[in-house]
Amino acid sequence: MSPPADRHPSANHYDIVIVGAGPVGLMLSTCLARWGYKIKHIDNRAEPTPTGRADGIQPRSLDLLRNMGLKSAIMAHKPARVYEVAFWDPPKSGAGIVRTGTWASCPSFIDARYPFTTLLHQGLIERVFIADLEKNKTRIQRPWTIKGFTSDEKADPEYPVTVDLEHVDGTAKETVKAKYLFGGEGARSFIRDQLKIGIRHKDPIAYVWGVMDGVVKTDFPDIKMKCTIHSAHGSIMVIPREDNMVRLYIQIASSTDPDFNPRKTATAEEVQAAAKRILQPYSIEWERIEWYSVYPIGQGISDKYTLDHRVFLGGDACHTHSPKAGQGMNTAFLDALNLAWKIHAVEAGFAKRSLLETYEPERKEVAEALLAFDNKYAKLFSQRPPAANEISAASAQADAEQNSAAENEFIKTFKESCEFTSGYGVFYKANALNWSPEHPAQSPVVHPKSTKLVPGRLFRIADVTRVVDANVVHLEQEIPLNGAFRLFVFAGRPSVTARALRDLADNLAKRGSFYAAYARPDAAAVSHHEQHNPHSHFFTVCTVFAARRPEIEISRDLPPLLARYRDHVYADDRWDRRVPDAKAAAHAKMGIDEEKGGIVVVRPDGYVGIVVALEEGTATVDALNKYFGAFCTKKLGEPAAQL
Amino acid sequence: MSPPADRHPSANHYDIVIVGAGPVGLMLSTCLARWGYKIKHIDNRAEPTPTGRADGIQPRSLDLLRNMGLKSAIMAHKPARVYEVAFWDPPKSGAGIVRTGTWASCPSFIDARYPFTTLLHQGLIERVFIADLEKNKTRIQRPWTIKGFTSDEKADPEYPVTVDLEHVDGTAKETVKAKYLFGGEGARSFIRDQLKIGIRHKDPIAYVWGVMDGVVKTDFPDIKMKCTIHSAHGSIMVIPREDNMVRLYIQIASSTDPDFNPRKTATAEEVQAAAKRILQPYSIEWERIEWYSVYPIGQGISDKYTLDHRVFLGGDACHTHSPKAGQGMNTAFLDALNLAWKIHAVEAGFAKRSLLETYEPERKEVAEALLAFDNKYAKLFSQRPPAANEISAASAQADAEQNSAAENEFIKTFKESCEFTSGYGVFYKANALNWSPEHPAQSPVVHPKSTKLVPGRLFRIADVTRVVDANVVHLEQEIPLNGAFRLFVFAGRPSVTARALRDLADNLAKRGSFYAAYARPDAAAVSHHEQHNPHSHFFTVCTVFAARRPEIEISRDLPPLLARYRDHVYADDRWDRRVPDAKAAAHAKMGIDEEKGGIVVVRPDGYVGIVVALEEGTATVDALNKYFGAFCTKKLGEPAAQL
Repeated sequence: MSPPADRHPSANHYDIVIVGAGPVGLMLSTCLARWGYKIKHIDNRAEPTPTGRADGIQPRSLDLLRNMGLKSAIMAHKPARVYEVAFWDPPKSGAGIVRTGTWASCPSFIDARYPFTTLLHQGLIERVFIADLEKNKTRIQRPWTIKGFTSDEKADPEYPVTVDLEHVDGTAKETVKAKYLFGGEGARSFIRDQLKIGIRHKDPIAYVWGVMDGVVKTDFPDIKMKCTIHSAHGSIMVIPREDNMVRLYIQIASSTDPDFNPRKTATAEEVQAAAKRILQPYSIEWERIEWYSVYPIGQGISDKYTLDHRVFLGGDACHTHSPKAGQGMNTAFLDALNLAWKIHAVEAGFAKRSLLETYEPERKEVAEALLAFDNKYAKLFSQRPPAANEISAASAQADAEQNSAAENEFIKTFKESCEFTSGYGVFYKANALNWSPEHPAQSPVVHPKSTKLVPGRLFRIADVTRVVDANVVHLEQEIPLNGAFRLFVFAGRPSVTARALRDLADNLAKRGSFYAAYARPDAAAVSHHEQHNPHSHFFTVCTVFAARRPEIEISRDLPPLLARYRDHVYADDRWDRRVPDAKAAAHAKMGIDEEKGGIVVVRPDGYVGIVVALEEGTATVDALNKYFGAFCTKKLGEPAAQL
Repeated sequence: MSPPADRHPSANHYDIVIVGAGPVGLMLSTCLARWGYKIKHIDNRAEPTPTGRADGIQPRSLDLLRNMGLKSAIMAHKPARVYEVAFWDPPKSGAGIVRTGTWASCPSFIDARYPFTTLLHQGLIERVFIADLEKNKTRIQRPWTIKGFTSDEKADPEYPVTVDLEHVDGTAKETVKAKYLFGGEGARSFIRDQLKIGIRHKDPIAYVWGVMDGVVKTDFPDIKMKCTIHSAHGSIMVIPREDNMVRLYIQIASSTDPDFNPRKTATAEEVQAAAKRILQPYSIEWERIEWYSVYPIGQGISDKYTLDHRVFLGGDACHTHSPKAGQGMNTAFLDALNLAWKIHAVEAGFAKRSLLETYEPERKEVAEALLAFDNKYAKLFSQRPPAANEISAASAQADAEQNSAAENEFIKTFKESCEFTSGYGVFYKANALNWSPEHPAQSPVVHPKSTKLVPGRLFRIADVTRVVDANVVHLEQEIPLNGAFRLFVFAGRPSVTARALRDLADNLAKRGSFYAAYARPDAAAVSHHEQHNPHSHFFTVCTVFAARRPEIEISRDLPPLLARYRDHVYADDRWDRRVPDAKAAAHAKMGIDEEKGGIVVVRPDGYVGIVVALEEGTATVDALNKYFGAFCTKKLGEPAAQL
């Protein structure tokens, strides 16, 4: 899917300038480069992150990387996988620590495709993106920095942004024009500062953290698990890593300490000594320290993500928080994904410019929820079990009860938070994209009662059998991240829905439909090998029958418009333990009638937009026209229906 | 696992000379290079296979590639995956072809980890091996050929083989000394000819085949499936490939034809025209032909695989057959694997030289079975449905019955053959490695009645949870192909087997045990990160408890000898649909007592050697000593027990 062919007025004109090549900048750049945009991407570091930094890829982010075809490159580095978290606390009596519980890091109630966190050094993750960018002829310009910018739509409605760039040693300068500027520079964002956008602190508490990556020798049995350890000597968090490494997070200071000093620091030796005390009776020795850093963390959120919808911020420039829930990189990825497809939808001519106004509220609400969660989680984490450090064998009983209460709240918070930390808890509130009873698309066929999908939440995972080659596939992964909306036509029983499918195709083909209105101008010349976008760059269609694969004959059971997506026709004939009695498990999981079917519109980023019944007649496409009409550039539907 | 440090008398002395860098030579070379052997590997082609040739990786071979860590490199090429085979035949009345059935290519009764065939161009597969070889400092010397060799153990007991090598253009020559010579040169093996080893033809029928790889445009609905198509105009086989390609196999002549000419050929255009006739009423057009070849195939088997157990043959040099069951490359892989670990066991000092005498019978019997199968399958494939080409609407009924009988036998053969073609049907008969009632290891604890594992057959697949990191893993994949025997200690319930495990460890530690007798000389200096071979290069031990993961405490539940394999301790706590009521699914699948456990010895190549009860006292290790004593170099067990 590519935007109108390159028509920039000069070599100095770009679609977008991206500042910062951390996770947020790289995700944005990678998406837009694949979709054909001209990008100026700079970073003030000479090399990708050499060591340390973020390292946790949450289950939902792994789905996304898989959807981009980048998962196997990540997995080739043999990252550690965290399936469970262990809690260690002082024993009810005596010294040391004992395991008081373990919990799945992505419990089965979440129904994740990859129910684990993937731990890998940020630099390796960055290089996976950089390699993909290079395939799309986009290189990061390093070490360069931004010196200033202006944005003036009146002066230049097409390229309103002017950006001054400079080599970090001052030896070279460039001024470029762009349609957009993106600040993915991290917590100390120059662009945010220039825009005079403030940071609001949800909670005034600040912390100083020490983080150490290294290779250890220990008899601590859970060194390959994620652990939160409270002891009489302090608290520590253990995160396994690739190559036999382990990361330790240790809190060095908190603004709740009576003598808090945000500049307080600790040497690596001091952190090692603290870890030794905390892990008693287990021993720990370092064979090698890979990386050690001390940094203060305040929980802050940017007041705005943009002022004019031309200059945007994302990632750590918008939200900072403690590292413990492993949210930074994952939130950054989703910030960028959210913005990328919206810029594309606008620039490729499908969506009104006002679509960009949904970026800030969608992502800022997620960040607010993240901070609220992080705050609660961090406080609990840094709390020592009350009086635990004064435990004596004599007073074991009373202390044990307090302990136990503290543990319970900690674990309870953790459990409640699993959905959030896995990434599956992220959801977007009602707006033009996410249908609600207030959405302009109102019709009896919209949002059938049985549906279990929620607009603004992720599409659910399901295994199905692809008809053309009998491959068992992951339905939610079948459409790559191609910037297109995903129409999942759950087609129920072929004998029941034959007429409804014909009517669907007929109405999609009508000139005023959302589908035909955005047809590819080159549709007649498209190769028969094109699987995803044969008719339109803005839509990919999958059809899923509630039937066994051998019963389905694509040319017989589907009208030509839908049959054209022959590689996207599936049999819902795989058994699923979550719906063991369903005849058609995918239909059942989505809450769609196994006989009559239904249509799910999924946004390009994987979130459900709207669910519509699959009915004979025009009502189904009428409803979809109203849905897309809420944000697309053209008036849709029958002339009579247009206002 | 490496052999004694390099102690070759000169740069011209090698452990092995391997001739031919097709699948058999590369597999052998890759294994031996990883295990530290010095290899002279030549091939008379200047480059790896550019196009065409074998392309089907069977499920069992994919297990093997995964076990070698090469699967993801194969999968990165996005091969086609064949899950089902479709059968097409003339309709009961009228012209053309109709689908008469489909069948899983690896049905669920086989319990395969990867129940599909992977289709990828042989050259890409070769390059995956070559890249691995280069990591181990082994390069294929091209284009070089073998000009002669001698093998004389009396003249040089250590390096009995002398090999003359020459650049194919005659510009350079080399003479090298080696312990072994391997001929993996394909059907026209120079080495086999020099040894005057004959080829026996199981069946005198020969065929001429045409094979064409290309990109097509067609409305034939099963073009992405494996299909066997019989029509009134001839027969064809369709195999999907990577990159939208499809392979067509078409039989051009058979020695059963009245006018058979083994030199008969056909042009690409003729094959295309034939395909068009056969596929009617569907259309097919070629966008591109990637490769086209015509070749005569006789089903032959080499009389011997070796004469002196120094010069060996494998792969197509030993067995040729029709291409349709996709067996060539897979059989080649397993030939090489069988030989590789045996050479290693002998050269590293673990096994008696006579172990090498098991190579020929084990692999030749498999080849005999393959030929018998191929013969039956090829005949059926090349048979046109009786009278089908004379079908008329008027005589539909009678013809249909004959048709139907032909189809049924074809499909029946196919079904029976699934186990064989998937690779899971390969098994080795009783010998020193594969226990039987005739094996020297006789004891009441050997082969408990309940066991479902069969010596000489593959270990079964099972999911378990690794204790140290709670990762869900594939038990059969947990020990890499490291040349070591695999001891799977199914440890039942910890409370029941505590004493038996202590006794096991105590008896393994005794000086005369198979385990201690082959301890690493450097055991004291081994890194604590070593997961697989902390004590011995010849054994890796896994312990699987019939308990939930959080209930297992490695340091408490295992004696130190077994606890040292902390990364190989598992909880048998994953539900398996095949044994839905089992408390411990892996135990149940193997037929091992969920309370009392049992020990499975798996050969380095993945086949079961022996199953022994896990009992208190010395009987368990005594039985294992007798088992290994049948082929290892040392006398094992208590002095009193030694003969």
